[in-house]
Amino acid sequence: MKLEMSKDELRRFLLHAPQDKIMNYIEEIHPVDILDILREDIEERKDILNRLSEKFIAAIIDEADAEEKYDILMEFSENKQKNIVEAMSSDELTDLLGILDESQANKILAKMTDEDARMVRQLLSYDPDTAAGIMATEFISIKENMTVRETFKYLQLTAKDTENIYDLYVINSLDKLKGVVSLKDIATSNFDTLISDIVQENLESIPYNMDKEEVGHRFEKYGYLTMPVVDSFNRLLGIITVDDVMQILRDENTEDIHRLGGVAEGEKINGTLEESIKSRLPWLFINLLTAILASSIVGIFEGTIEKVVSLATFMPIVAGMGGNAGTQTLTIIVRGLALGELNYKNVKRVLFKEIGVGAVTGLVIGLIIAILGYFWEGKIIFGVVIGIAMLLNMIVATISGFLVPIILKKLKVDPALASSVFVTTFTDVLGFFFFLGLATIFIHQLM
Amino acid sequence: MKLEMSKDELRRFLLHAPQDKIMNYIEEIHPVDILDILREDIEERKDILNRLSEKFIAAIIDEADAEEKYDILMEFSENKQKNIVEAMSSDELTDLLGILDESQANKILAKMTDEDARMVRQLLSYDPDTAAGIMATEFISIKENMTVRETFKYLQLTAKDTENIYDLYVINSLDKLKGVVSLKDIATSNFDTLISDIVQENLESIPYNMDKEEVGHRFEKYGYLTMPVVDSFNRLLGIITVDDVMQILRDENTEDIHRLGGVAEGEKINGTLEESIKSRLPWLFINLLTAILASSIVGIFEGTIEKVVSLATFMPIVAGMGGNAGTQTLTIIVRGLALGELNYKNVKRVLFKEIGVGAVTGLVIGLIIAILGYFWEGKIIFGVVIGIAMLLNMIVATISGFLVPIILKKLKVDPALASSVFVTTFTDVLGFFFFLGLATIFIHQLM
Repeated sequence: MKLEMSKDELRRFLLHAPQDKIMNYIEEIHPVDILDILREDIEERKDILNRLSEKFIAAIIDEADAEEKYDILMEFSENKQKNIVEAMSSDELTDLLGILDESQANKILAKMTDEDARMVRQLLSYDPDTAAGIMATEFISIKENMTVRETFKYLQLTAKDTENIYDLYVINSLDKLKGVVSLKDIATSNFDTLISDIVQENLESIPYNMDKEEVGHRFEKYGYLTMPVVDSFNRLLGIITVDDVMQILRDENTEDIHRLGGVAEGEKINGTLEESIKSRLPWLFINLLTAILASSIVGIFEGTIEKVVSLATFMPIVAGMGGNAGTQTLTIIVRGLALGELNYKNVKRVLFKEIGVGAVTGLVIGLIIAILGYFWEGKIIFGVVIGIAMLLNMIVATISGFLVPIILKKLKVDPALASSVFVTTFTDVLGFFFFLGLATIFIHQLM
Repeated sequence: MKLEMSKDELRRFLLHAPQDKIMNYIEEIHPVDILDILREDIEERKDILNRLSEKFIAAIIDEADAEEKYDILMEFSENKQKNIVEAMSSDELTDLLGILDESQANKILAKMTDEDARMVRQLLSYDPDTAAGIMATEFISIKENMTVRETFKYLQLTAKDTENIYDLYVINSLDKLKGVVSLKDIATSNFDTLISDIVQENLESIPYNMDKEEVGHRFEKYGYLTMPVVDSFNRLLGIITVDDVMQILRDENTEDIHRLGGVAEGEKINGTLEESIKSRLPWLFINLLTAILASSIVGIFEGTIEKVVSLATFMPIVAGMGGNAGTQTLTIIVRGLALGELNYKNVKRVLFKEIGVGAVTGLVIGLIIAILGYFWEGKIIFGVVIGIAMLLNMIVATISGFLVPIILKKLKVDPALASSVFVTTFTDVLGFFFFLGLATIFIHQLM
């Protein structure tokens, strides 16, 4: 059974248990759980780290964010750093070096073997937002003319330290990817079977320059565990595994939710006050400008409001409900775009549906507010004006909630980023305009 | 190399290529890609399905949503249905039966072997939102006294049809889970090694009644590929694999984004007009009530607005900016709660930070709007009133954006669902109240 310890028990254990006991139990502890403890208490970090093996420290660093990787590594002597770096995986080393300046990076590169340093330099040359930027180079490659027995012997000799050996890649003498044999295929074949008899040649691979979020969606759609990354000559460069992809998808979802909510995609709940203000103030400025724009419409009609002051009471309802309806539509469209569910085949049908939603909900909400307006002001025309304004604004809301994200996507702007500003600006400006404009036309009946 | 076909080419191929050619190439096509085509054209569905093998149809059904599973299955004769059902995996069969009424479910249960039917009935008895509700029962279990060679022989005989054999579970005679051996451990051990020598006994398992979203977060955090599910006596009931979990996490993110945007969590972009209206109208009603509540505050101050009509022009800015600031805070808090990043250790610090953000951004935005108000109305006191109202409202906004989701979470309500209504109600009501209330106090200086 699993060693069950609370976070605090684990922390005390790491700080106070005898060294040999820690060594005995450490394999039962997931590096992520220790990372959680290191994150909470910077002061105890060094004490805890000093009680762990270099291999285990490398495993913790593998799980950490790039900045944390550096902070943890810097707790150690030059010599120990070298051993830890040796035990780290290539993709995590690349993440770490990617955030350092040149002199810091060179110091760490100097701690690697020549071969590792060359490989990491190569990985660093790729765009970090592409498949090549997130791949690892620890994979097993075999030749077609090996038998299953020979493959097992080879694995027994070489694969102990390779994290992922569930897919064995078959390459030819030019390093070109010929196919794949899963460890399952090997484990369920007779020992004398030739690899060429069980190799699966129709292998899907990921081009090295594919956007990493697109990589994430591929994994999600097809349920892959591992995918090979190839260059334009179909040479095997590295592999991407599902656990790295889950992190990418999680970050992408956080990014979308943050952008829809008007905060910077990278804002962290544990960030500083300064970071939060930097994340939010630009967005608030943009919103202030659009709010002033909408208010200037109200300003134009001050004369009308002066005559029928109840207009001021009802006007936020028309604008606000339009904003809500527009936000609903854009939520569906933005998420549909992110999941690839909106395409040229269904785009027209979705537009007509959204106009329908605007019309039907506009009629229902318009009717309710018209009745309320009539009772408040005691004039049927007041109800008619607010009801029609509501209907018009909610139709505009759903149309703009549909069009804005699609146009932004066409312009290569993330629809999650700016859609809501545009849509609520439309619904505010037009909501005030429809309502106060109609009221101005019928001002004599309203007074 | 992978057979590269566009969707339309694949559709034509499936409809018109000779049967033997389809049989030859079908292994190169991912079932998900065929499912995409079946989704687009209901009329061609039967023609395409009739050209595929029962095993491949089962693979397609495995990838489909529960409703689609049933529709596809119903395209076939009773006899063929039986063969397809036999080839389906236990977790997917359970999903399918879960949405059927009793007589439909019994018809399908009748098509299974007694053993399969008993197993699926058992799976159906679990809550579908728990670990047991999503697990599959296709796993490999072995005994401690087997050697690596015997294990391979066993796998060669039995494991061909088991999708996931990367973790082999070691159980004792009472079916209790003793540990796990990964296929990697076996592949890299000598053939004479005993399983008891390489079994990893400190195995983390998932209790059968754990919430499925919590299961998803565990996989995400620890990077698992497969996890065993046990009952309260530590008996192995089934396994959960990362590809199922990715679907759960994706659905959870969609749910959160939908709820934050005020649409029903299950609304589909390809759904009907009626479904969209049902998804959105309840939310619009709630928003209408809160908008009327906020407007009634304005109604109270109609006398003040009548005297200084510029108040009507500026009042939506104060309310709207508070809404934006509150939405920013609640976005960070809701996402932080969803990712488990907000806890009792940092909650106080985050609250003070949010108050700080409200104060600083409130001062900046308040100052800008105060200057603008002064120029518009030509009176310093007008600027002072709107500036102070803005500052107060933005502080209230960040505090409510912090408190509302945390209180909802405590009350076991999804914070994503209702937070934004509460927060914008606060900011609208208090925004109008601060601004028009202050204006009423200083009405003589303002006129």
